[in-house]
Amino acid sequence: MTDHDTTFQWDSLWLGANIATMKGGQYNLIEQGAIGVRNGHIAWIGVQGDLPEGYEAKQTYHLEGGLITPGLVDCHTHLIFGGNRANEFEMRLNGASYQDIANAGGGIISSVKATRAASVAELVATAQPRLASLMADGVTTVEIKSGYGLNLQSEIDMLRAAKALLDANPVDVKTTCLAAHALPPEYAGRADDYINYLCDEVLPKVAQLGLADAVDAFCEGIGFSVAQTERYFNAATQLDLPVKLHAEQLSSLGGSTMAAGFRALSVDHLEYVTEEDVQAMAAAGTVAVILPGAFYMLRETQKPPIELFRKHKVPMAIATDANPGTAPVLSLRLMMNMACTLFGMTPEEALAGATLYGAKALGVDHQVGSLEVGKKANFIHWNVSAPGELSYWLGGQLLQRRVYLGEVSE
Amino acid sequence: MTDHDTTFQWDSLWLGANIATMKGGQYNLIEQGAIGVRNGHIAWIGVQGDLPEGYEAKQTYHLEGGLITPGLVDCHTHLIFGGNRANEFEMRLNGASYQDIANAGGGIISSVKATRAASVAELVATAQPRLASLMADGVTTVEIKSGYGLNLQSEIDMLRAAKALLDANPVDVKTTCLAAHALPPEYAGRADDYINYLCDEVLPKVAQLGLADAVDAFCEGIGFSVAQTERYFNAATQLDLPVKLHAEQLSSLGGSTMAAGFRALSVDHLEYVTEEDVQAMAAAGTVAVILPGAFYMLRETQKPPIELFRKHKVPMAIATDANPGTAPVLSLRLMMNMACTLFGMTPEEALAGATLYGAKALGVDHQVGSLEVGKKANFIHWNVSAPGELSYWLGGQLLQRRVYLGEVSE
Ligand SMILES: [Zn+2]
Ligand SMILES: [Zn+2]
Repeated sequence: MTDHDTTFQWDSLWLGANIATMKGGQYNLIEQGAIGVRNGHIAWIGVQGDLPEGYEAKQTYHLEGGLITPGLVDCHTHLIFGGNRANEFEMRLNGASYQDIANAGGGIISSVKATRAASVAELVATAQPRLASLMADGVTTVEIKSGYGLNLQSEIDMLRAAKALLDANPVDVKTTCLAAHALPPEYAGRADDYINYLCDEVLPKVAQLGLADAVDAFCEGIGFSVAQTERYFNAATQLDLPVKLHAEQLSSLGGSTMAAGFRALSVDHLEYVTEEDVQAMAAAGTVAVILPGAFYMLRETQKPPIELFRKHKVPMAIATDANPGTAPVLSLRLMMNMACTLFGMTPEEALAGATLYGAKALGVDHQVGSLEVGKKANFIHWNVSAPGELSYWLGGQLLQRRVYLGEVSE
Repeated sequence: MTDHDTTFQWDSLWLGANIATMKGGQYNLIEQGAIGVRNGHIAWIGVQGDLPEGYEAKQTYHLEGGLITPGLVDCHTHLIFGGNRANEFEMRLNGASYQDIANAGGGIISSVKATRAASVAELVATAQPRLASLMADGVTTVEIKSGYGLNLQSEIDMLRAAKALLDANPVDVKTTCLAAHALPPEYAGRADDYINYLCDEVLPKVAQLGLADAVDAFCEGIGFSVAQTERYFNAATQLDLPVKLHAEQLSSLGGSTMAAGFRALSVDHLEYVTEEDVQAMAAAGTVAVILPGAFYMLRETQKPPIELFRKHKVPMAIATDANPGTAPVLSLRLMMNMACTLFGMTPEEALAGATLYGAKALGVDHQVGSLEVGKKANFIHWNVSAPGELSYWLGGQLLQRRVYLGEVSE
């Protein structure tokens, strides 16, 4: 707060809507609220009737009803990739087995091939409409992972593409190096060698170039072991990069507990997490990222243990996991509905998961994720009466205005 | 075809995209296709290289890639209603039982109360953004049912609101009188009397005013019996109104077979349909309307028997069932994904279900639902490479241009 703030001179003032601030992860509804914005940040927020005497605003927006929430935070996406895998989706529904698809060159390796073959400009151009879709449904902060390059140059290209998307769009982009996403074909049967390569060459270079805000891995029977992931996390930690992890999606390996030992920002998926894992996450302040899109698309039946996260007060975030194989998801709001419908989360938990706790999973909850004085003026004006409607409607154009750093961007 | 058509003088010509015509319910993909439009209808369609000599077009659209499909047909919606029931959705997820909700005035009766309390203008105003959402995702023909009025005046008001939406939007609206949707409180315990009232007063007046294109009922243990529905269908038939039916959603009552006896346009839901029912539908030319939204929201486990519909060649349509209780669905494309993911339909079947067979379920497949000479020039230009992508992506802004009667409307 500067002296100027206490004189209540604002660039813009927003009036006439209710506001779900999401402070503390709850609606904290303000009826007939007001937001004063200065230098792209929230300078004042409260009930319109409590506006201070003598305030001045260069521009005043008189909204006629509706609801304001924080801009949505999609804290787990694989938004950048070459090609797509609609053909595999269609083959499978026409009776092809996973083996048939692998024989036809499908699976994650097909995304790796297409990604490696693409230029940075092509990666940006194909990801742009996907990012635009997320933004049109309310996202103002998005995480984007690498992980389809699986070699130094291609991983760097993916992260550069993510940075280019940041430069070109009114959205915050956080980048995550997911070089340990899968074993590239040239390392077949040599997973430990691949981890060595990541620790010795890829992570140091990515860190040196400042391309990643965090480091991630896929810890799973069909991915990397806990021991391999731990080695990779040690390298990341020595480079001062925070970690997050795909873990316990298809089986229980204890990757979550290991990640909590590194004070991971988040562990993601978590269908098979144990209570011990959850306790470790709670102690470490690690966020549980719930990804209902992959659960739905894969027709899984084992649900993440929402009750355990509640019991141990582990904050739950919700994300799209947008990716070409298991979650071709371009709407975070739809994931809020699925978190409620499939996993029994409440609409309030779902909105907190797509705002404040999404921000916490990225380590940016001091800047975004709730509407409080000092945070970025990133918010959405929705054509709804109550915050529960954001989880209730499936699809639909509910977004009326998208505000990024105090500027209307849609 | 008139003489003018054979001189190939068109109002507009569309070039540069692939076209999935959906003729016969299959993709029938035309690569580098061309569509000539005259008087709002398709005058020519084929491969661009086969365009006839000497054609003239007042306006030529050079599309740069992408895919054209028929405009989508949403053949089953309850788009008009007062209020919404997001509060019940939220109560349930916070642990309230159905009885708690009923005690709090919830359930379908709350929609009836809110609908009866609304003016026609209010019904139009609240349905308009929902219709706009469907249209923005590709719908050019939509069916709208009454059924929250449950008395003569309110049912007429709902149908008038649907007609007003037709007048105000570039979309075909087909209206269905669903007066036998539920038993209104004033008839509690007197279902047969209510059916008498519908047969003697409501249906004749609705027919006389020309407000309904078809008549529908909810045949279910918690709805109306097969015998009651049959009586109501007899009244409709005497008024020359075609029928369709909500049946076998929660239990197997044989309503489908009864409806097939009336050559029903469609029977809808069908989770518990038997092979005998399916055979009766096949013999009658009745369409099976698949509604995955309610199945998903209610967490049902009994799936409609897709294999039986295939075996007996019953055409399958897909619809949103957009309604405030069991399916707050505002995207038909999302239902295509759910039909594939939850029920194992193929993307080609899903697209046929949202175009040609949706049209057949409304008795308008001679006018819309596929791209053929003589049909309405209602089509969508999508930002996708292959038709399977329309079922693959969850959410997202894939629609690039929406064309209604040859005019760009979005
Ligand atoms: Zn992921
Ligand atoms: Zn219905």
